[in-house]
Amino acid sequence: MQNSENNYVYGKNPVFEILLKNPKRINKIYIQKGIFYDNRLKKINDLAFQNKIQIQQTNLQKFYEYFEEKPNFQGVVASVCPVEYINLEDFLDIKKDGFKKIVILDGIVDPHNLGAIIRTTAAAGFDAVMVSNHRCAPITAVVEKISSGAVNHIPIIKTTSLSASIELLKKHDFWVIATQMEAKDNYYEIDYTDMNFALVMGSEGKGISKTILNKADFTVKLESDFESLNVSAAAAVIIYEAKRQINIKQPKSL
Amino acid sequence: MQNSENNYVYGKNPVFEILLKNPKRINKIYIQKGIFYDNRLKKINDLAFQNKIQIQQTNLQKFYEYFEEKPNFQGVVASVCPVEYINLEDFLDIKKDGFKKIVILDGIVDPHNLGAIIRTTAAAGFDAVMVSNHRCAPITAVVEKISSGAVNHIPIIKTTSLSASIELLKKHDFWVIATQMEAKDNYYEIDYTDMNFALVMGSEGKGISKTILNKADFTVKLESDFESLNVSAAAAVIIYEAKRQINIKQPKSL
Repeated sequence: MQNSENNYVYGKNPVFEILLKNPKRINKIYIQKGIFYDNRLKKINDLAFQNKIQIQQTNLQKFYEYFEEKPNFQGVVASVCPVEYINLEDFLDIKKDGFKKIVILDGIVDPHNLGAIIRTTAAAGFDAVMVSNHRCAPITAVVEKISSGAVNHIPIIKTTSLSASIELLKKHDFWVIATQMEAKDNYYEIDYTDMNFALVMGSEGKGISKTILNKADFTVKLESDFESLNVSAAAAVIIYEAKRQINIKQPKSL
Repeated sequence: MQNSENNYVYGKNPVFEILLKNPKRINKIYIQKGIFYDNRLKKINDLAFQNKIQIQQTNLQKFYEYFEEKPNFQGVVASVCPVEYINLEDFLDIKKDGFKKIVILDGIVDPHNLGAIIRTTAAAGFDAVMVSNHRCAPITAVVEKISSGAVNHIPIIKTTSLSASIELLKKHDFWVIATQMEAKDNYYEIDYTDMNFALVMGSEGKGISKTILNKADFTVKLESDFESLNVSAAAAVIIYEAKRQINIKQPKSL
């Protein structure tokens, strides 16, 4: 079965999150025969019923063949359509009070890093993640699981040309911040609070492609005493530095 | 072969790092028969020769049986003694200008998170990582690989009682900072620059154990719009916030 990892999502939280946010994506839910229904499984059952989604009790072992590793299904597998991506144009049309913040991933091919960064970006309250068609890992079940279902909480913009999309962002008053080992400024030395911005993270091996770097308004570095940071750790540090600055500037009551 | 994952390290960077920092740990190096020697493999070869470590050219497939997944050996496997842990007492005896900063892991059982946090802690220039004998994943080849060899760059303190070790740290003028969802203060609202401190990170599922929480001098939270952050992302954010504060206070020229 080709590309089968795109078509199954497993684990209580990921399945529950899709049911909550994006039930149209689900074709059918499979629950392990004879399993005890804990609260989470009961909720999945109820939500599926409300959304008229069929549940089949079965032996989930048969789904092992669709995955490279034998995953821990936690008793539930859902057959789904791939994540509904959003177009950049549609994202730009969304009205928002205040500034928009997005993360752009250039060449992140490891599904663990991809899932981890999407989870952190959602956690920090950013507005979207943008990935490239060609130069990024696809949003598979593994990515979805590692993101802890966050792929359904934050819009994922998919683009066929990062370069053209970045031009379009700039036309719409976004500032582009690229991370680069050789940058002069530390990531905490720029002010994230008064602009729409797109933070570009590159792959650990190759970094950000030159075309993209040339389009950046700022480059920032993240110092390290031992090699570079893992890209998902680096993303977490910079994303939360932006959040910290914004939190300090805008007290919660506003 | 029991605990075999403790005894093999694979991948060019991890093997190279041990050769550089801790060659005594290596019993023997195995290199894939017929592989092209790139610069990294040549360096491994030279360092092994200098340290009188035997190299055997062989088919590395035979090592698959020692690992749950089939890892990418990158052409090199080393048979090693487990990481040399350091005692807390010995760590406390190490003289240092300025304050010491360590990370304590309470119940981190996922080897990916363990490796990622050790890597970040080393990258931020912290002084040690402390793990518990009972409540933490062991430092296996998987952890070593994910840490990108950082387990050889930063002392790993192993303790049989986190609780007793934290008492000892406090007697030696360390302040204990615990992360907790319910804390009042944000992680960036405390001053990391004027004290020895130990940052305690708990497991995602269970958090920090109550005994340890009760011993903490501060508890801090990390806000999230979507579930909690992954523990290795949260660790990166807080560790680098401490580093940021210290960098700002002590310009590099000092």
